[in-house]
Amino acid sequence: MITGQHFIGGRWQGVPVAKHTSFNPATDQALLWCFAEADSAELQDVTELASSAFLQYRLTSRAERAAFLQAIAKEIEALGESLVHTVMAETALPQARVEGERARTCNQLRLFAKNLMQPSADIIEAAEPERVPQAKPALHLQSVALGPVVVFGASNFPLAFSVAGGDTASALAAGCPVIVKAHNAHPATAELVARAIDKAIVQCDLPKGVFALVHARKHAFSEQLIQHPAIKAVAFTGSQQLGMHFQRLIWQRAEPIPFYGELGSQNPLFALADYLQQHTDNFAQSLLASVLMGQGQFCTRPGLVFLPQTDAAKQCAETLAVLCAKQGSGSLLTPKIAQSYREQCQRLVQQPDVELLAQGEGNEQGCQVVPRIFAVSAQTFLTAAILQEEVFGPATILVRCADSTQMQMLATTLAGQLTATVYAEDEELRRERAFWQQLALKAGRLIVNQMPTGVEVCHAMQHGGPFPASTDSRYTAVGSQAIQRFVRPVCFQNMPEQLLQDK
Amino acid sequence: MITGQHFIGGRWQGVPVAKHTSFNPATDQALLWCFAEADSAELQDVTELASSAFLQYRLTSRAERAAFLQAIAKEIEALGESLVHTVMAETALPQARVEGERARTCNQLRLFAKNLMQPSADIIEAAEPERVPQAKPALHLQSVALGPVVVFGASNFPLAFSVAGGDTASALAAGCPVIVKAHNAHPATAELVARAIDKAIVQCDLPKGVFALVHARKHAFSEQLIQHPAIKAVAFTGSQQLGMHFQRLIWQRAEPIPFYGELGSQNPLFALADYLQQHTDNFAQSLLASVLMGQGQFCTRPGLVFLPQTDAAKQCAETLAVLCAKQGSGSLLTPKIAQSYREQCQRLVQQPDVELLAQGEGNEQGCQVVPRIFAVSAQTFLTAAILQEEVFGPATILVRCADSTQMQMLATTLAGQLTATVYAEDEELRRERAFWQQLALKAGRLIVNQMPTGVEVCHAMQHGGPFPASTDSRYTAVGSQAIQRFVRPVCFQNMPEQLLQDK
Repeated sequence: MITGQHFIGGRWQGVPVAKHTSFNPATDQALLWCFAEADSAELQDVTELASSAFLQYRLTSRAERAAFLQAIAKEIEALGESLVHTVMAETALPQARVEGERARTCNQLRLFAKNLMQPSADIIEAAEPERVPQAKPALHLQSVALGPVVVFGASNFPLAFSVAGGDTASALAAGCPVIVKAHNAHPATAELVARAIDKAIVQCDLPKGVFALVHARKHAFSEQLIQHPAIKAVAFTGSQQLGMHFQRLIWQRAEPIPFYGELGSQNPLFALADYLQQHTDNFAQSLLASVLMGQGQFCTRPGLVFLPQTDAAKQCAETLAVLCAKQGSGSLLTPKIAQSYREQCQRLVQQPDVELLAQGEGNEQGCQVVPRIFAVSAQTFLTAAILQEEVFGPATILVRCADSTQMQMLATTLAGQLTATVYAEDEELRRERAFWQQLALKAGRLIVNQMPTGVEVCHAMQHGGPFPASTDSRYTAVGSQAIQRFVRPVCFQNMPEQLLQDK
Repeated sequence: MITGQHFIGGRWQGVPVAKHTSFNPATDQALLWCFAEADSAELQDVTELASSAFLQYRLTSRAERAAFLQAIAKEIEALGESLVHTVMAETALPQARVEGERARTCNQLRLFAKNLMQPSADIIEAAEPERVPQAKPALHLQSVALGPVVVFGASNFPLAFSVAGGDTASALAAGCPVIVKAHNAHPATAELVARAIDKAIVQCDLPKGVFALVHARKHAFSEQLIQHPAIKAVAFTGSQQLGMHFQRLIWQRAEPIPFYGELGSQNPLFALADYLQQHTDNFAQSLLASVLMGQGQFCTRPGLVFLPQTDAAKQCAETLAVLCAKQGSGSLLTPKIAQSYREQCQRLVQQPDVELLAQGEGNEQGCQVVPRIFAVSAQTFLTAAILQEEVFGPATILVRCADSTQMQMLATTLAGQLTATVYAEDEELRRERAFWQQLALKAGRLIVNQMPTGVEVCHAMQHGGPFPASTDSRYTAVGSQAIQRFVRPVCFQNMPEQLLQDK
């Protein structure tokens, strides 16, 4: 049952506002659920409870936090079909995708749990009392939790990057209480997942303030929340515009705190001549599948494709156009996202020298849109700034280059990216070493001969690139290292080791 | 020979300005050397050269960078007595201290070199092409250099935290070119060390822009330098006022970059009753030695000492007062630092309920000052904000507390600190676990029964605490982990391993 309430201090509270309904993008209709709106009373409660919970939760053992994450995963699974149907109703994502994302979310929680069950990465150096000219003290470097964390989930991953997604999982693993601002595009999904966390908190007998969910459509609440002195870090996935607005507010705080904003990316892809010659049609099919995955609503969707001036490249573009033109319409996550997609495509079409190579067929009303492929010359790419803006949705822009030298030149003009991809034969890869080494300056992940969509949740992942892809390229939002965002090192000097042991 | 010039692009250039002389704090006289003043031409040169050097230097092997750091250390040692005498003339620090700091500086360079000779900490995960439902790609997570780094050295460590100090050593180790703004308090020292680096660059055949030294007394140059798009990180050691001014300028950049400001600290020290009972006079002697070390000009000097209301504590305060009153005057690093010290002491004395327990005897003109010990009640500490301001120089404030419970309460009111120290018997440490665990919230290093002055350069050190001690508590300015400030992770997906091997 969805009550539309906040979850604060272990209690479900607040009165749903009739006009704050959830929305079904597949039918373009409001759903029956409506949701509460947090105000200053909730702000005070939620921050005070998180602060006091922190003083206890930071001292839990690694095993206790692992058990908590495992319990959350189990309770999410126990939500069963009601969760899957709720996500589908709020997002129009197909069932297989939702089930896959649920599995990913639970695996993610269990990965952090598993990592916590490994020995900590503390660095311990023994005293050397006899050392000259000075004795060396015993030193023990440990990671400690930063404090209460605010999480703003993503619209496009209602489970894996939302209430119990990667940000929450890594912050809880680190020992930080979490306050989630429910995403307006999937508030019922948010509530269900928060109910799973509620059960896990009770089972694990943790402080009530260790997790909270608040509904707030007004930006003012979020703005006050991230500026509140109790908050020690903020994780955000969303638009560059809102992300940088939040970043500037955080810079105005008396105490600056880390802001981890994942602000989107064009994910440039470079297909080199020899590779394209060998794999023309396969490449075109893979590329289109990657562009269309999740209706193009992946932050790693390839939005810029650099092709050489070869016959194979021309054929590839033709194949892409033919395949694209056969696609029907599909629902984006919200009316706003759909409208923004259509407007951006319109602006591209109106741009001189931007060619609309193909577009899908079908209706484009409400949340419905069709895919599009644009093409431009290298010269146009260099002069039209609009071509370096992310189009969120099922579109991509082909950039026709003379050769790999011109590609390399264009690459130097790119802003920071989550990913950059090179398709090349082995020999090309060796020959073009300087090219892809330079590409690594622009991205957090450099991929060879695979599409950038699909982000493995593991130890070696980096999901976060140079600004403006992310606000802090030193950290990843996905994978084991994501926990590093919510800790800082403390050196214990000459402290008896038995007092530092984990419980 | 000191020419007073900048070192840019492998060339010594610029015309010394007659009034920009170096200064001898021991004699309160200008030295004969005078120094150039960088302007917009130097700004353009130095940033362009650093940018182009970065494209080569980032691709050097770990062994090549290690050899460079070792060569710098060797060339610093080869400067011999002329370096020691120059430092002494510009800082009034005693010979043994200068020689010790030189050894520390060279050891620091060699520590980073040694770390580079170890295998990298890359995380490598093999592909699992058979995995269901999806194949796992091969992933290789590597650290890459951020880009050109600007370093502002510290007045109080003219070698170890200056031209070839920890910031420069760790940035060069990471693969970042470095631009050092010479500290106005020791420009001749800066030049000598830059000459050592010059030789090392030539020996190692590195790009000319890999290191630069610029002299600039006007803040405008530094402001433009840190806002320049070519600069990708800034390390700063100095006052909270100037540090936060730089931080705000960096926040105004189109591309935000990391700013590592080490802004000072009071380093609270808590002496518990049983310990004090056992070690009264020894503790008093150690404390005074720590407060007076380097004329109190250590960023880890204990500036707040919390004592219980016991007879032993009273005796300890008396011993301190007697020892302090016997101290003569000494030279601080600059007339400005000395004047600021005297003014802050004056403001403390004028504060109601602040007692001047003791002061040394001697002259207080020019750079000369005498040490002072102040004492306040817990109540006064809670109400007078001035007591939470760092006094840079040979002074400390005793805070008389009822017991450890009151100490713990006062500790919660403290701002972020580089260090916090507890003196306690083993049994007290076990009993007061909640107290020191809470103290760890406030500091980057928590020390038991040792004075906070003296920062070991090693793997397990953390020198950097919660704001305002540092601008970014997630990083250390000292020790092996300092290199993390100048790198970001890049994940190479499906890249042939032989192409990622270090040369």
